Amino acid sequence: MIIKHNSRELKYKDPYGAVPCLSRVRLAFEFFECNRQQLDVSSLLTLRWEAEYDYEDIYIIPASVEYIGENESSGFIVTYILEPEVLKRPGTYFYSLPDFADRQLTVYRQDLDVPEWFLNSIIYQIFPDRFYKGDGPCEYKKDSFMYATWQDTPMYIRDEKNDIIRWDFYGGNLWGVCQKLDYIKALGADIIYLNPIFKSISNHRYDTCDYTQVDGLLGGEEAFAHLLEEAGKLDIGIMLDGVFSHTGNDSIYFDMYNKYGKGAYHNTDSPYRNWYRFKEDGTYECWWDIPAVPNVNELEPSYLDYIVRNDDGVIKTRGKQGICGWRLDVADELPSEFLRELRAAVCDDQVVLGEVWEDGSNKVSYGARRTYFTEKELHTVTNYVFHDNLLKFLQGEITSGELTEVFESLKENLPKHNFYALVNMTGTHDIVRLATVCGDRDMVKAFSLVQFTFPGVPLVYYGDETMLEGELDPDNRRPMPWNSLDQASVKWFSDLAGLRKSDSCYTKGEITFVNMDDNDIFAYKRTWEDREKMVIIDRKHRGIEYFDKKVYSVVTQAGNWAWLLEK
Amino acid sequence: MIIKHNSRELKYKDPYGAVPCLSRVRLAFEFFECNRQQLDVSSLLTLRWEAEYDYEDIYIIPASVEYIGENESSGFIVTYILEPEVLKRPGTYFYSLPDFADRQLTVYRQDLDVPEWFLNSIIYQIFPDRFYKGDGPCEYKKDSFMYATWQDTPMYIRDEKNDIIRWDFYGGNLWGVCQKLDYIKALGADIIYLNPIFKSISNHRYDTCDYTQVDGLLGGEEAFAHLLEEAGKLDIGIMLDGVFSHTGNDSIYFDMYNKYGKGAYHNTDSPYRNWYRFKEDGTYECWWDIPAVPNVNELEPSYLDYIVRNDDGVIKTRGKQGICGWRLDVADELPSEFLRELRAAVCDDQVVLGEVWEDGSNKVSYGARRTYFTEKELHTVTNYVFHDNLLKFLQGEITSGELTEVFESLKENLPKHNFYALVNMTGTHDIVRLATVCGDRDMVKAFSLVQFTFPGVPLVYYGDETMLEGELDPDNRRPMPWNSLDQASVKWFSDLAGLRKSDSCYTKGEITFVNMDDNDIFAYKRTWEDREKMVIIDRKHRGIEYFDKKVYSVVTQAGNWAWLLEK
Repeated sequence: MIIKHNSRELKYKDPYGAVPCLSRVRLAFEFFECNRQQLDVSSLLTLRWEAEYDYEDIYIIPASVEYIGENESSGFIVTYILEPEVLKRPGTYFYSLPDFADRQLTVYRQDLDVPEWFLNSIIYQIFPDRFYKGDGPCEYKKDSFMYATWQDTPMYIRDEKNDIIRWDFYGGNLWGVCQKLDYIKALGADIIYLNPIFKSISNHRYDTCDYTQVDGLLGGEEAFAHLLEEAGKLDIGIMLDGVFSHTGNDSIYFDMYNKYGKGAYHNTDSPYRNWYRFKEDGTYECWWDIPAVPNVNELEPSYLDYIVRNDDGVIKTRGKQGICGWRLDVADELPSEFLRELRAAVCDDQVVLGEVWEDGSNKVSYGARRTYFTEKELHTVTNYVFHDNLLKFLQGEITSGELTEVFESLKENLPKHNFYALVNMTGTHDIVRLATVCGDRDMVKAFSLVQFTFPGVPLVYYGDETMLEGELDPDNRRPMPWNSLDQASVKWFSDLAGLRKSDSCYTKGEITFVNMDDNDIFAYKRTWEDREKMVIIDRKHRGIEYFDKKVYSVVTQAGNWAWLLEK
Repeated sequence: MIIKHNSRELKYKDPYGAVPCLSRVRLAFEFFECNRQQLDVSSLLTLRWEAEYDYEDIYIIPASVEYIGENESSGFIVTYILEPEVLKRPGTYFYSLPDFADRQLTVYRQDLDVPEWFLNSIIYQIFPDRFYKGDGPCEYKKDSFMYATWQDTPMYIRDEKNDIIRWDFYGGNLWGVCQKLDYIKALGADIIYLNPIFKSISNHRYDTCDYTQVDGLLGGEEAFAHLLEEAGKLDIGIMLDGVFSHTGNDSIYFDMYNKYGKGAYHNTDSPYRNWYRFKEDGTYECWWDIPAVPNVNELEPSYLDYIVRNDDGVIKTRGKQGICGWRLDVADELPSEFLRELRAAVCDDQVVLGEVWEDGSNKVSYGARRTYFTEKELHTVTNYVFHDNLLKFLQGEITSGELTEVFESLKENLPKHNFYALVNMTGTHDIVRLATVCGDRDMVKAFSLVQFTFPGVPLVYYGDETMLEGELDPDNRRPMPWNSLDQASVKWFSDLAGLRKSDSCYTKGEITFVNMDDNDIFAYKRTWEDREKMVIIDRKHRGIEYFDKKVYSVVTQAGNWAWLLEK
């Protein structure tokens, strides 16, 4: 028996892709080499609902056989209807037949959407300590080290046990970001996503010391308010990094080193005691077993109040101050309930971006199927799937067929507004720099040409636009080389931003993948209204002579790697 | 047979102590319980001359019996005369009889002396990176760390092999020294001894990179010239630290890291190749087996030219610039010939202070008896003997009798002008801070009361005057705590300086040790012309009621530890 079902064709599945709750979905299967009389098609299809906390429901779709007919070549077609009441609960569904692998059906709450302004945005990510040291008052941290020159090579200062014993800073600050706003604007950015800026001991500030204070070394609240104001004048939004899965152990909350008083570590009656999970042996649960970052109980009411619920809590205070959204650190480790409360607390026009490293529509973390997009949780996630697979293709590790499959899958699994909001990064502070991975300048251009012509919001990690190199942390956090900018590369990125904004094709257009060669050529079309753009990447550098030059004209090209054509 | 001979009494040895060459010395011995007839006294005394390079000459003084007579209690006295021609060669002599331990007789070149101005001086030692960060142009070092605040705790930045991988700086500079000259002057200092200031990779700068340049981080030549000028206006001399036993491996001479070109490590035809001792296996000889500091062949002509002989060499250039002298790092490791050439190259009114940790009159290093004071080499050495033994006494580790013996020995062994020039330190950058060793504030006062009333030149290691604490390196190089000076302690040191300068007794006066109690009370008198001062330290804190208050009045006292009295 052979069963044929291509969920991406309307013939087999209608409507295409993810659907809102209470949708009516038609599924059709073609059977070959099979005796129709021996098959009880009426009870063949099962539909499985999976959502949070390892819970699943299995439906057998028994009586929904709508039509059975012979097909041309001696097979037959079975069609099932998932009636609206079947899909009343949002979540990630999987349907299957015996001997036929699971297919995902994403069912999302009907009231979900992503703010329009975000879909049209370009993000510039800044690691504040490494971007620019501007003029303005800053408070230096006792017992920390400052790199002597902006050109120094970053390094960790560790003891013989490999623990970090003192933090290293270049002294980049928010005054510096203000002073470089024109540069950022010229790059076409609409949003500056700042790695954490709240008071912390470290240079990365993922070990929050005090959620209520902008770090003094960055210029404190004064510099932050100034940045909001100045960026606002240029229509640039500021997105903050929310680190809510853990705090620092050197924090006003945990206070392992008894610096602040009232800390949970030393005081069982601390107001923060219930934020943490202490064990009987005096140890405590921490993120990735790193003692510096004790995990918090995100659902502890006093924590929820402090961060999310209170009018003067962290989320609402910064929301009222006018930020444009939050990037949530390690979103996978934040309970859904926390995400939903948080999403409810942000303003309607603010965006919540989760740090997720896989397809967010079917991510399982800590034994639970996540509901980032099916419930009101995240608007978008970091699209490492895009980044990693596109690079794998460019580097010859996967075929264009495999890459297309990855993208088709994302397109199908995600609610459309989420797919169009995915954040497609050149890089982040957690991975090897684009220029280093690529080595080849034209490969960087091919990558970014796709990035800026693909559905989703492009994000440029500071420095990637100037071919800044860098291996893993800390090397990927080198200071921005202001004295030796690669002007040609900066112009390339700025031009790409201009291109993207020149036509809604790039932001709103339908995407259709084009199979020209299942191996070395990856291609897709973007269409919107009467326009069509086509991107072709040929990792074998064979030129584009095999396209019809009467139909297409070249808009831009990335060396002999990639071309953007239009009809 | 019992032999009695106290070399410190003229009855037994005349003249007292060290003598210039061609002196005539009388030595007398008392014999008891011995048959005069059976003793061939005419060939009993041997005199041994020891100088450099393990060479020794033994003289038997055969026919110099001058007088033999019965003494009162059935013994007899034998007197020998060392005729001038016997002591024609400078060096360290030892004389002995059978069954009678060696006695040292130091014989020095007749033309030696110490500049008068130095004997009247007080030295303030500054570790430049840690004293004061003044306003003025400075050049930061690439790939080094600056402490974020002046209050930070010093530390080394090491890798897992415990090697220092990046240098740490507070950024103190010579502009800062200029800006604190009034403070230094108020402390009574006449000389500022600066730890190394030539261009180097490290914060201590004992790994010279370029002998011809003042380090840019310290403000460079401009700041140094300014310091010389401003200090000169206040009659304060500047003493430099000469590090001539080794260079840095990261230097223009050795250039292990191929930064400068022409370096000895990579070029066999380097002009500096002969400065170093390369082994067949490609390794090289270095100081204390630390690869960062390759030893130099001090006697290699091109090195001697570069440092000492050339008119535009290091010694003469800085001499002409007007420094008041040199402190020579690890003087024990510098060959005598190098020291003599160096001494010949400094101006007559400049002083050469050697870093020596023991009695410089009989020091043996690398198999050679050194000739620091007998030949024209050093004016003075660092008197760790004074520092260490005085502290041992104050802390109850040795008795006052033992301490007196140590000091008597120094006084006897050294030429008088050298004994009066010994540099008596509160501390240095190489040992635990005085305040930390003492713990007790009054012990610090007792120590310094002796230091400032003793023959020799007091040296205050920056910060010791304000009770700055510190264990061994790097803790003994903490930044000067300008914001929390211990004003009472600073005043104490400043008063001691004033006291010392108030009467030549302290600088020129004869010293006589007074045995009041062989255990817990250490006392001495200083006499000059008609004046007499007496210092008494009672580590049992019993007060001074056991002195004749009709004869002595109290000048000052250090808690209930010590008293300075005068007749």
